[in-house]
Amino acid sequence: MPNGAQILIEGLVGAGVRACFANPGTSEMHFVAALEDASALRPVLCLFEGVATGAADGYGRMTGRPACTLLHLGPGLAGGLANLHNARRAATPLVNVVGDHALRHKRLDAPLESDIEALAGTVSGWTRRTYHAAELAGDVAEAVAAATGPPGRIATLVVPADVSWSDAGDPPAATPPRPARRGLVSVDAVTGAADALRSGESAAVLLGGEAVRGAGLAAAARIAAATGAELLCETFPARAERGAGRPVVERLAYLPAAARRRLAGVRHLVLAGATSPVAFFAYPGQDGDLLPEGCRVHTLAAGAEDVTAALAGLAEVLGPGSPVPEEAARPALPSGDLTAETAAAVIGALLPEGAVVVDEANTSGLWLPGATAGAPPHDWLTLTGGAMGQGLPLAVGAAVACPERPVLALVGDGASMYTVQALWTQAREGLDVTTVVFDNRSYAILNLELGAVGAVAEGARARRLLDLSGPSLDFVALARGMGVPAERADTAEEFAALLKRGLAEPGPFLIDCVVPSLV
Amino acid sequence: MPNGAQILIEGLVGAGVRACFANPGTSEMHFVAALEDASALRPVLCLFEGVATGAADGYGRMTGRPACTLLHLGPGLAGGLANLHNARRAATPLVNVVGDHALRHKRLDAPLESDIEALAGTVSGWTRRTYHAAELAGDVAEAVAAATGPPGRIATLVVPADVSWSDAGDPPAATPPRPARRGLVSVDAVTGAADALRSGESAAVLLGGEAVRGAGLAAAARIAAATGAELLCETFPARAERGAGRPVVERLAYLPAAARRRLAGVRHLVLAGATSPVAFFAYPGQDGDLLPEGCRVHTLAAGAEDVTAALAGLAEVLGPGSPVPEEAARPALPSGDLTAETAAAVIGALLPEGAVVVDEANTSGLWLPGATAGAPPHDWLTLTGGAMGQGLPLAVGAAVACPERPVLALVGDGASMYTVQALWTQAREGLDVTTVVFDNRSYAILNLELGAVGAVAEGARARRLLDLSGPSLDFVALARGMGVPAERADTAEEFAALLKRGLAEPGPFLIDCVVPSLV
Repeated sequence: MPNGAQILIEGLVGAGVRACFANPGTSEMHFVAALEDASALRPVLCLFEGVATGAADGYGRMTGRPACTLLHLGPGLAGGLANLHNARRAATPLVNVVGDHALRHKRLDAPLESDIEALAGTVSGWTRRTYHAAELAGDVAEAVAAATGPPGRIATLVVPADVSWSDAGDPPAATPPRPARRGLVSVDAVTGAADALRSGESAAVLLGGEAVRGAGLAAAARIAAATGAELLCETFPARAERGAGRPVVERLAYLPAAARRRLAGVRHLVLAGATSPVAFFAYPGQDGDLLPEGCRVHTLAAGAEDVTAALAGLAEVLGPGSPVPEEAARPALPSGDLTAETAAAVIGALLPEGAVVVDEANTSGLWLPGATAGAPPHDWLTLTGGAMGQGLPLAVGAAVACPERPVLALVGDGASMYTVQALWTQAREGLDVTTVVFDNRSYAILNLELGAVGAVAEGARARRLLDLSGPSLDFVALARGMGVPAERADTAEEFAALLKRGLAEPGPFLIDCVVPSLV
Repeated sequence: MPNGAQILIEGLVGAGVRACFANPGTSEMHFVAALEDASALRPVLCLFEGVATGAADGYGRMTGRPACTLLHLGPGLAGGLANLHNARRAATPLVNVVGDHALRHKRLDAPLESDIEALAGTVSGWTRRTYHAAELAGDVAEAVAAATGPPGRIATLVVPADVSWSDAGDPPAATPPRPARRGLVSVDAVTGAADALRSGESAAVLLGGEAVRGAGLAAAARIAAATGAELLCETFPARAERGAGRPVVERLAYLPAAARRRLAGVRHLVLAGATSPVAFFAYPGQDGDLLPEGCRVHTLAAGAEDVTAALAGLAEVLGPGSPVPEEAARPALPSGDLTAETAAAVIGALLPEGAVVVDEANTSGLWLPGATAGAPPHDWLTLTGGAMGQGLPLAVGAAVACPERPVLALVGDGASMYTVQALWTQAREGLDVTTVVFDNRSYAILNLELGAVGAVAEGARARRLLDLSGPSLDFVALARGMGVPAERADTAEEFAALLKRGLAEPGPFLIDCVVPSLV
C-alpha cells in the first residue's frame, strides 16, 4: 500500500510536474525517500529556500508548466517568499509542497510551529492543507490544476508529516480536474479596441503577460502595422520574446519621468495582457499613475482572459498589415574601458541565438535593451515583483527547463548577494548558465532613488548604507567556493573573451564584470 | 520642521535603541538620510534581510534591549521572517521598521505591493501601520515599549514612504509609555512548587528564558542544593550562562529518546520559565509529549511572569542550600584526526572567559556541551526556533552588542549557507567573531532524521538531496570572497592552532573545520 508521500509524488508526476526544487527538513523525509522511485521527477537541491522558489519560477516561465518546490514548514516557506512574490507577479504556474508537523503534534507548539497558511496566503492563489493521506491524490491534482489555470498562479499544498507517512489506501480512480482555460474576451472589447486604433488619434498597445510571446506578439505586430499604433511592453515582463526578425516592441521605462515622456501624447492606450501603467514607487509631489491626461484606456484582455486569441481577433478585424520586424544588427565589439555601456555592447555582439536572458542588472542594465534588440532571437526574463535576489535562482530554473538553450544571467552585485547560494546548485546540476555580475560596488539603484525621492544624504553615515565596497566582494572567490569556474574582467576585451568562453563551455561560468557605478 | 523619518529615528534613540540592522530600499531612503545626524544609532548594512533580523535577535539576546531592523516592504520583511521566527521563540525584544509605498500609491498595486501585515502577524506580538507623520513619535514609543515588555517580543512598525518624508509637525510632549513589568507569580505557585520539591519523590526543575541566567540561575542552584532536585534546562535556550563556577544545569536532549531517558522516573517537574517538554518533531508511533507517565507538572513561572523573582522566592521558602558549582575543567588539547568529538575538545580547551558562543552546529555539536561545561564562564546562544541560518547573523548581532567580548560561532556547513552573507557584515564592521564551520559535506541532521521517522532512502536519488558534496563547498574561498580571513583545518592540531589565532586576532576569522559526518 503506498504511503501519502508516494501518492503525492505520483500525483505530481501524473499531472505533468517534472522538476522539484527542494530544501527539505525532517517533516519532508518521506517525500525525499519516495523520490527514489520517481524517475520522472527531477530533484534539485537548493541550499536556501529562496533559490528553490526562484528556480521554480524560472522553470514555470520557460515551460508554462509548474515545477514544485519542497519546503520545510513555515520558516522554510518564509525563506522562499520573496521569490514567490516575484513569481506571483509573473503569473507563473508553481506548486509549493510545504511539509508540516504531524497533525497530533500541532497542539504542542513545538519550536518550528507557525502560521503556514498566513504566509502562504500572501503569495498563493490556492492554498490547502491535507488532513488525510487518502485525500492527497485529489488535493495534489487540484493544486496542479489551480497552478496551471490561467493566467498561472501559485498553489500551496501543506502536507503534515503523518499524512506523508500514513498508508494512503487504494489510489482513487483517476479523474484529474481539467485546468480552466483562458476566457475569451467579449466582442465589445475587440471592437472597442479596434475603434480606438482606427480613430486617427495617437494610439499605443501595451503588451503584457503572454502577449509578448508567440502568436499574440505576431498579431500585435500586424495590428501595429495596420493602424500605425505603437507597440509598448510592460516594464517588467515575465518572459518577452525579442531579437532580430521579431516585432519591434519598446519596454516602458522604469523611471517614471522617462515612461511619462514615452506615453506623452498617446490618446488611446489598448491594454493587452498588461495593466494600466503606474510608477514602481511613489515620489513626493508626483502622481503614481503614468497615463497622460486625456488618454483613454481600452482593455482588450486582462487577467485570465485569452490575450493571444484577442490580439488575433483584433488583427483580423483591423485587416492586413505588413509588420517591419527588428533588423538583425549587433554592436561592434568595443575595446578599452569596461562600463555598463561597453558591457552591454559586448553582450549584444555575442548573444547566441535561442539564449534565455535573465535580467536583474538594475542600473547597470540601462544599455542592454538597445544593445541586444537586433541580436538573434532570444527570451528576456525580468524582475517582475521587485524583490531582489531573483536573477541567479531564475537562471537555475530556466536552465533545468531548457537544457538545450544557453542561459545568460545578468545581475547586479547587490542583487546577486541575496540568493548567491544558487551558484552551488548550478555547479551540482551542471547547468549551462553564464552569469555576469555587474560589479559596481554599490546599491547604485538606491543612490539613484535617494535623489529621486528628494532625500538628502550627503554624509558618509547614510551613503555607507548604499555602498558595497569596504570590503569589496570578490565574486570570483565566491563562485569558485561554490564550484562554479569564474574570472574577472576589467576591460571590454577581457569581458568579451570571458563571455565567449562562458557561452562556449558547457556548465556554469561566472564573470565578475567590474564597471563604474552610473550614479 | 523634522520629517517623519527624523522623528522616527529620534524616537528610537530616545527609547534606547542603539543599533539598526538594515537592508533598505527606495521607500526607506528618508530613513537612511536621517541616520546621518543620529550618531547614537549605529547603522549596520546587511546584504540579505535574514542577516539583519538574525543580527537584531543576537543583539537583543545579549543586551535585553531591542535593536531595530530596516526592511523594504513585504518582500524585505519576508526575507527576514525565518530568523524572526527564531527571535520570536527566543522572546527577543526587537523592533522591525518596514517601509512601504506611500499611502496614495497603495491602490495602484505596484509590483512590490503585498500584504505586509499578514507577514508581520506571523512573528510579531505587536504590529502597527502609521498613517500620519504626526503619529510616528507615539507609534515608535509604543513599538519599543511593546518589544521590551515581558517576556520580550517582536514589534513591527510599517512606515509608508510619505509618512517618512512628510513634515511631522511639532514633536509631541514626551510621554513615552512605560514598558510593562514582569508579573509576580502567585503565592500558590511558589508553595505548590515547594511542596512538590519537598515531597521526597524524584523532582526536577526545568529552567527556561531568563531562569538560565544571573540571579534566577543562582536561586535555582540553591533550590536544587536544598532539595536534591535536578536542574534541567530547555533544549534550546535563547541565552544560557554556564561554565566553571556556575550552577550545574543539564540541557534536555534534542532526540526524544534521550530526553525521555533523562526524564524517566521524575515524579514532579517544576517549570521555571520553560514550557512542558515536547519533541521537536513527531515520529510515527511516538507521543510528542516527553513527560514520563505519572509525572506531575508544577508551573512556577511562565510567559511574562517574573521567573527570577519566583525562583528567589522559592529558594527563600526552601531554606539554605550549598550549591556545588561546575568545576573548572578543560579537556586536553587532542591530536590527530579532526572529528566532531576532537573539535569539541579543542573548543573546550581554548574557550576564552566571557565568550559568547553561538551554537548552530547541529549533529557536529554533540560533544560541545560536555567539552565546554567546565570552561571559564561564558554565554551559550542556541537555535530557538529551528529555522536554519541563524548562527552567522546571531554572531553579528552579539558582536555589535558586546564589542568587548569574543564571539564564537559554531555552525554546520548546511546551516551556514542559508545566511552566509553575514560574513560580509562581519568584515565591514570589523566584528570580533571567530566562525567555525563544521564541514561534513552533508545535511547530517536529516540523514539522522530520515531513519528516525522510519523513511527508507537507500538509493542515490534520495540520499543526494541530503548530500552537500559534489561540489564541496570551499568555505575558505567563500569567507575570503566576503573579506573575512579564513583557513582550513584537517587535523586536531591545525584546528587548535587556527582557533587560537582566530580568538587572539581582532576582527572576524573563519575556520573550515573538516569533520566526518556522524551519520
